[in-house]
Amino acid sequence: MIELVLVRHGQSAWNLENKFTGWKDVDLSDQGREEARRAGRLIKEGGFLFDRAYCSMLKRAIRTLWIALDELDQMWLPITPTWILNERHYGGLTGLDKKEAVKVHGEEQVKIWRRSFSTPPPQLPPTHPDHPCSDRRYAKLDPKLLPGGESLEDTCRRVVPFFEKTIQPLLAQKERMIIAAHGNSLRALVMHLDKMSEDEIAEFNIPTGFPLVYRFDDALRPIDRRYLGDASEVRAAIEGVKAQTGKKKN
Amino acid sequence: MIELVLVRHGQSAWNLENKFTGWKDVDLSDQGREEARRAGRLIKEGGFLFDRAYCSMLKRAIRTLWIALDELDQMWLPITPTWILNERHYGGLTGLDKKEAVKVHGEEQVKIWRRSFSTPPPQLPPTHPDHPCSDRRYAKLDPKLLPGGESLEDTCRRVVPFFEKTIQPLLAQKERMIIAAHGNSLRALVMHLDKMSEDEIAEFNIPTGFPLVYRFDDALRPIDRRYLGDASEVRAAIEGVKAQTGKKKN
Repeated sequence: MIELVLVRHGQSAWNLENKFTGWKDVDLSDQGREEARRAGRLIKEGGFLFDRAYCSMLKRAIRTLWIALDELDQMWLPITPTWILNERHYGGLTGLDKKEAVKVHGEEQVKIWRRSFSTPPPQLPPTHPDHPCSDRRYAKLDPKLLPGGESLEDTCRRVVPFFEKTIQPLLAQKERMIIAAHGNSLRALVMHLDKMSEDEIAEFNIPTGFPLVYRFDDALRPIDRRYLGDASEVRAAIEGVKAQTGKKKN
Repeated sequence: MIELVLVRHGQSAWNLENKFTGWKDVDLSDQGREEARRAGRLIKEGGFLFDRAYCSMLKRAIRTLWIALDELDQMWLPITPTWILNERHYGGLTGLDKKEAVKVHGEEQVKIWRRSFSTPPPQLPPTHPDHPCSDRRYAKLDPKLLPGGESLEDTCRRVVPFFEKTIQPLLAQKERMIIAAHGNSLRALVMHLDKMSEDEIAEFNIPTGFPLVYRFDDALRPIDRRYLGDASEVRAAIEGVKAQTGKKKN
């Protein structure tokens, strides 16, 4: 059986403040650390052994992975941090909370940016301090790859080729992997794996701290996916993400 | 200027109990975690920026690196854990404290194992639970590489080729690196870099939690090495390691 474990990072300081975070390197809150420990415990209870791990280059995902691997007593795994798993880049919305965003851009426009699959947020110029061009961690990448703001579609355009070129060949070799990433980079992956429509992915929310496990057949077609953890707690967490989104929209 | 930063992991639970640890995967003590934080702060005060990190496959070194990178706000660096940086394997002495070792093997013999450059400890058979053959993390390696007990000379035989084949070419490309490892794997490296004799390395001790910085010329010849941190505190820590060794011998 070929399996892949996905973990969305726990709550960050800016999740708490209801701000657009994107590529801003905000740390986990105390609750986020606890969620990461829970994810590690659930994976351990499931008896998962890994050969390698991937994460984004943002510390809320890296720390989630570190905490989970510590719980699993698998700290020695090779970990590859990659910008491709970073959150959707929120461009000019970065750091704004909902009220500010509506005040600056109008309610209708903010709705479109949040709900639309293909409309990107206002682009940051490369000279802006929040543009990844200014960040040393991305200095070895072709600057043309670095976004100043992304739609979910843009995020899919980096995540899907990474899955196909890097993760799939490793799955074919039966490598057991854990990926720690973000709400939208994981939604991009789920949309691809489950062949979801734009409408379907718009309604699909991944809770924090409950690992999502995909099973694949030998042709690497997804058989099914399941969350680890108590089903009613997982449902409540998914409802929590929905409610948060609803609050942001109104 | 080409520099390389070496960090010996902080105090572990078994350091506290004066036990031979070797490849046993013992965690840091609270003091060890504090030493790792201090190492991170000292590196940060020195203004070091890194491109990549290496560590052993043992959690006391991995956690030291993680804590230091967290202090440095460079958690996103690629980290390569490798067995080659593991501590000297203490074979049949693993888990024994000094008194037990003397009781089982005699004082004279224990002295030879501890002081001699080339005499290995009693070898563990591959069937022994402390032999790395039984440990999943080494499963992809050629079993012939995995020691059942090492002299310092044996440790040099793995560390020096790793330095020459992996680290030196990266230094030549001006890659800035931090290596978190162990008393003996780092002594093996220092012996090589500083062309020390067997007698010289026998007297050379590396304190925990005080980073050791090598500078190299463009031909990658070491120019000098220095510890980061208050000179008198570093001296006291080195004396502490010596005193610990002395205590073990008597």
